Order: sequence, then structure tokens, then C-alpha cells
Amino acid sequence: MHIDVLTLFPEMLTGMFQSSILNKAHEKNKYSYDLINFRDFTENKHQKVDDYPYGGGAGMVLTPQPIFDAVECAKKQTNSTKEPRIILMCPQGEAYTQKKAEELSEEEHLIFICGHYEGYDERIREHLVTDEISIGDYILTGGELGAMVVIDSVVRLLPDVLGNKQSAPEDSFSTGLLEYPHYTRPANFRGLSVPPILLSGDHAKIETWRRKESLKRTYQRRRDLIDETCLTEEDNVLLEEVMSEEK
Amino acid sequence: MHIDVLTLFPEMLTGMFQSSILNKAHEKNKYSYDLINFRDFTENKHQKVDDYPYGGGAGMVLTPQPIFDAVECAKKQTNSTKEPRIILMCPQGEAYTQKKAEELSEEEHLIFICGHYEGYDERIREHLVTDEISIGDYILTGGELGAMVVIDSVVRLLPDVLGNKQSAPEDSFSTGLLEYPHYTRPANFRGLSVPPILLSGDHAKIETWRRKESLKRTYQRRRDLIDETCLTEEDNVLLEEVMSEEK
Repeated sequence: MHIDVLTLFPEMLTGMFQSSILNKAHEKNKYSYDLINFRDFTENKHQKVDDYPYGGGAGMVLTPQPIFDAVECAKKQTNSTKEPRIILMCPQGEAYTQKKAEELSEEEHLIFICGHYEGYDERIREHLVTDEISIGDYILTGGELGAMVVIDSVVRLLPDVLGNKQSAPEDSFSTGLLEYPHYTRPANFRGLSVPPILLSGDHAKIETWRRKESLKRTYQRRRDLIDETCLTEEDNVLLEEVMSEEK
Repeated sequence: MHIDVLTLFPEMLTGMFQSSILNKAHEKNKYSYDLINFRDFTENKHQKVDDYPYGGGAGMVLTPQPIFDAVECAKKQTNSTKEPRIILMCPQGEAYTQKKAEELSEEEHLIFICGHYEGYDERIREHLVTDEISIGDYILTGGELGAMVVIDSVVRLLPDVLGNKQSAPEDSFSTGLLEYPHYTRPANFRGLSVPPILLSGDHAKIETWRRKESLKRTYQRRRDLIDETCLTEEDNVLLEEVMSEEK
């Protein structure tokens, strides 16, 4: 997989790419990337990439030429057999989910377009991009953080990127339920102790306790995630217990 | 406002803090920040910050001691009159929204705890943190990107941080509706032209066109955002038009 990020602030992203999983995966040639400053592509003699909106109004709008040209250059420089996914990070986009991360992890070439303060000229949206993605209902100063969120969640899904050590116990969403509570040493920390059952060595009981805690947390916090068709008979018994304890 | 970020990967975050709005706001003393590697606080002689989970299972769990101690140190070093908000970034947390960003922007001291691969010992969650936040239903390799998302969205709301130039036309959510399409020069780009109405100079008509496009986009993409109690009589007429055109 090759990833291109079009941004006016490439220095925002270098630290992220040079740390942790993204760095390790890159060193192991699991993916390659380029940070492309699309200001380098402007034909404007003052190096401008934005202009006033037609029809008036506050704020500036990114003009199509530098972004179209930067995308075309990125396409040419990458030997992929498939057409790239050209992804616009914006609040109007499709809500990003783990399912979308899995879908994108099957691609060969991802191109991210990150605006910053400015709006995008609608012709970019209509005639260039294949996907518009929003990472959530909150306002960020630019698309860069959103692009990094998507990239991080996609790269960790590429084959052989995550070792056993990194397959986190916190992988909520993959089981469909929120995770049960975790405890590690010491058994007593400043008077706060670990639930005795976890020290009992009784694996069947631990298993049941964890499943119930997982159901409880999901019931308390994210009832929308409980898919009744995926629950076993034992789950249903545990969930009944949780519901009567909550009353 | 003072912001502390507890992380094992401080180098992931420096580029973000040194760019764009976060950097400018910092230079203008609108907030201060520290990146704290909580490994520096471990009392473990091998510098370990995690350990195997009690009760067995895959993955590692962050042990409470270094995180409790790092938070206590951060509290002592900050002269705030109010208790800090101690924020755990995790998939089980409350879904982050613009409303939460506004709430946090009123605080004096925010402390973010970022795990990485590992789970958190439950005692951190129960006895130390004040808020658990999730930025969305997708799996990231660590809490760092989530913390940056929250920090970016909060800092831009601090007084005098955003200039006029940065008050983006893309501010969806602040109006309750998704933004209308933006266009800028050239009027004709590779055969793709700007809607003639935007070049007409008729401001009343432009206003109505934009409102209708905003309603249309929201109706097409995010019907859940349309709050009928906030619509004017004119909005209702435009929405009727949109709905009949969509049929």
C-alpha cells in the first residue's frame, strides 16, 4: 500500500509517521508514504492556494488547480494496478467506522486531501474525490488529524503489522461488546485491590466474570452496540442478571 | 489553560504542537502544555510500565503506579484554582462531541492519559480519571491521536485563538446544518463551471440558494442533524422543495 497525504502542514505529520506502529510498519516495508505540500503545485505567481468565495461570505476557499494537479502527480508516481481512493477529510463526510478501516486496508493506494481552516471548492468534491470521511461530530482546525486517524487505523490492519504484543486487550468493537476491566500487579495498590476472582486460578469462573462485566459495561455505556442475534444463551442469562442489578 | 499529556510516545505529538493554530496559540500564551513520559515515573527497576493481566489473557495492562504518580506530579506543578479534568482516551469512553469540546474549553487544567496497545488497570479508570473519552467507533494503536483531536478542538475555542481568517466556512455543526457548497476562482476550471447564481451579484438569491443547498446536503447525508424546532418558515418551504426533488 502507498499513502499520499496532501497538506499545507506536512511538519504536523512527520512525528506521527516516525513513531510506534506507523514507523515500524514502514521500516518493514508494509507500506510507503509521501507528504505532499500542494502549495508546490500552484500556478499562482504569489503561491496562493485559496481565494475568496464566489457569492461573498467569510473565510477562504481552496482553489481546485493545485489539488487536482497534486493528485494527478501522485497517481502518476505510484505503480498501482487499481485506481486510488482519493479521500477528502471533511465534517460533511461519511462517519468513519472500523468497517470502513477494514475496507480501506484492502486498497493499494490512498490519497488524502487535508484542508486547513479553508473550505474546499465544490469541484474538488464532485469531480476528484472518491470518498468523503468525517472522524466525528466535532470541529478541528484541519483535516490532518483526521487523515492520521484513518491512516493509523488502516495501517494496523495490514498483514503482519501487529505483533502479538500489540493485539490489545482493549480491542472493543472487534468483539461487538466493550471490553471487561483489566487488572495487573500489584494485587493491592494504595489500598485498592484486584477482584479476588481474578486471583482464584479458576479459569471457567474468570471467563464468566469477564463476559458478564463486558455485557455490563456495554449495557451501561453503549446499549446500541448490543446485537441480540449475536448473544449466546449464557450471555442472555448474564445480561438478565446485569439488568436486574442495574435497577 | 494548562494541558498535560501522559504518553510513552511524546515524539508523536511534538509536530502537532509546533504547527498551525496550536503553535500560534502557544506563542501568544493562550495555553501552555507539557508532554510527560510516564515511564519516567515508574518505580520498577527495569523501567517497566505494564505487566501481564490477572486472570490470564493476551496483551499487556498498564500498571497503576507510574500513571498515578505522573498525574500527582502534574497536579502539583500547575497553579490552578480548580481541580484538573483527568481524561482517559479509550474506546469505552463517552463519544466526543462539539458540546464536550466547549465544556472542556472552560477548564483551567486538562490532563490526558494515553495508553498504547495496552489496556489500563481498572483502578486508573475508577480512582483517578474524571472523564473517559472516545473520538469514534474505530480502533487506533494508541490514545495519542485521540488526545490531539480533543486538544485541537478545545484550543481553537479558547478566547482570541482564532482570527477571522481561520473561522472556516466549513464550520458545520455550529449552524446545526452541514455547509453549503463553496466555489472560488476560476469561474471555469477545465470545463467545470461555478453555478451562475453565485456570479449574479444578487445577494438575496445567493442567500436562499445557499440555505437550500445546506438543507439539501444535510437531508441527503445527515438527516439526524435536522432539528425541526430550529427551522424558520422559509427553511420549511426550502426543505419541502428538497424533499420533492429527491423523490
